[in-house]
Amino acid sequence: MQSQAEIQDFVLNGYLTYIPHVSLDCAIFGYHEQQLKLLLIKHVALGRWCLPGGYIKRTETLVEAANRNVKEKTNVDNLFLQQFKTFGDPGRAQFSHFDEKKWFEVTSVHIDKTSWLVDQTISVGFYAITDFSITEPQSDLTTTCEWFDVDNLPPLEFDHDEMVRDALHAMRIQLYHYPIGINLLPEKFTLSEIHALYETLLGKKLDISNFPKKLIALGLLKKLDEKRSIGAHRSPHLYKFDKEKYDQALQNGVVLS
Amino acid sequence: MQSQAEIQDFVLNGYLTYIPHVSLDCAIFGYHEQQLKLLLIKHVALGRWCLPGGYIKRTETLVEAANRNVKEKTNVDNLFLQQFKTFGDPGRAQFSHFDEKKWFEVTSVHIDKTSWLVDQTISVGFYAITDFSITEPQSDLTTTCEWFDVDNLPPLEFDHDEMVRDALHAMRIQLYHYPIGINLLPEKFTLSEIHALYETLLGKKLDISNFPKKLIALGLLKKLDEKRSIGAHRSPHLYKFDKEKYDQALQNGVVLS
Repeated sequence: MQSQAEIQDFVLNGYLTYIPHVSLDCAIFGYHEQQLKLLLIKHVALGRWCLPGGYIKRTETLVEAANRNVKEKTNVDNLFLQQFKTFGDPGRAQFSHFDEKKWFEVTSVHIDKTSWLVDQTISVGFYAITDFSITEPQSDLTTTCEWFDVDNLPPLEFDHDEMVRDALHAMRIQLYHYPIGINLLPEKFTLSEIHALYETLLGKKLDISNFPKKLIALGLLKKLDEKRSIGAHRSPHLYKFDKEKYDQALQNGVVLS
Repeated sequence: MQSQAEIQDFVLNGYLTYIPHVSLDCAIFGYHEQQLKLLLIKHVALGRWCLPGGYIKRTETLVEAANRNVKEKTNVDNLFLQQFKTFGDPGRAQFSHFDEKKWFEVTSVHIDKTSWLVDQTISVGFYAITDFSITEPQSDLTTTCEWFDVDNLPPLEFDHDEMVRDALHAMRIQLYHYPIGINLLPEKFTLSEIHALYETLLGKKLDISNFPKKLIALGLLKKLDEKRSIGAHRSPHLYKFDKEKYDQALQNGVVLS
């Protein structure tokens, strides 16, 4: 949020606009040239980093709410957000690390024990994959936002360590059933490049022919009459996605292994 | 619920025990000898059938709440419930078909417009698969409960048609990543029997060697030194699950296609 007035209104009257007891959190993975990162935010009054998230307006679908929250907190827009799990165990979001003094310094708003923000909340988890090289997370009055290496994350606030683990697990299973690569690879790419994308996202070595072969068999990848020259005797064919079949497969799911 | 007193207390004071604005619904699939069914309930004051579900106690995990609700409404116990999606679109659970007069006749309780039960609610969806031949759904004061053929379901209340479609889709994707069969097949079974289980759950014909072959390769299925005699020249080998590897695979996920 950008101003104290906005924050004050949110703390006092937010329950009229948003559904109480329900929040959402988003694991935004960033891929670029064989590196995988995760977008985290640090709230001014909390000691640890956590996933970006927020509340759901009474007039929004869950996906609309997730997109708005990610945009507000990170300036990352129009992601293909996938819901993966809802978290609701008792005690999941203790505010024991919440620094009330610090919060008041920045916002001039008290949150007392009867606030709608303090009562038990379940959270709907989403994940997305974007290209971290073209997204510039931005910070605001109450939060800082940064990319972190997925293999080297700090310990997170609330139950967000569990959320990240479950988001990675869900994303890795969905890779076997939904195509991926548009917006993460150049428009024309080699089989090695898409192979590297799958290896990085899955976090393991794969048989080189595995995913690309199946993508070609299903008509999702088209071989072009073009090669890329990358050295003496090395000029691999270029490929591109069949956008129509790609969108169909995103809709209906496929078996890619 | 069994008594009017219980229902009255739930309508008036339920928000103290349960998390408001959040419910859950369960798609309980029933398999037996190549038939797939779905468990539905009909509420006394609603015109259409719907999935069994209810509210979440503030002291329960989501899975505990799902199990308690299924047990209360259907007398089906200890299912392996899998969360698949949360539903929260505005207008998803209109009570436009709710027959207030009928409800009052049965329960002697009014639900007015300020009740915690009437405000906007998101619902966490679970699914499970059980053997319908050994479960006897039971009805109570406000609900009737029955098995329906999955290919011949009545139109459902609220957004439950969408829930059933999404539950089937999620279950079918998870079949490629988690073992299934314990409690649905006899302890010792033939490859044809487990093949038929997969075909019925997936709702399509499969290459006979597909899933069983991979289950054997991963050590999840063990070939026994026993055959079943089913006629002249027909005595297929029997198999059973390796329980330890089965439980590990349920925990960590595998690739079964």
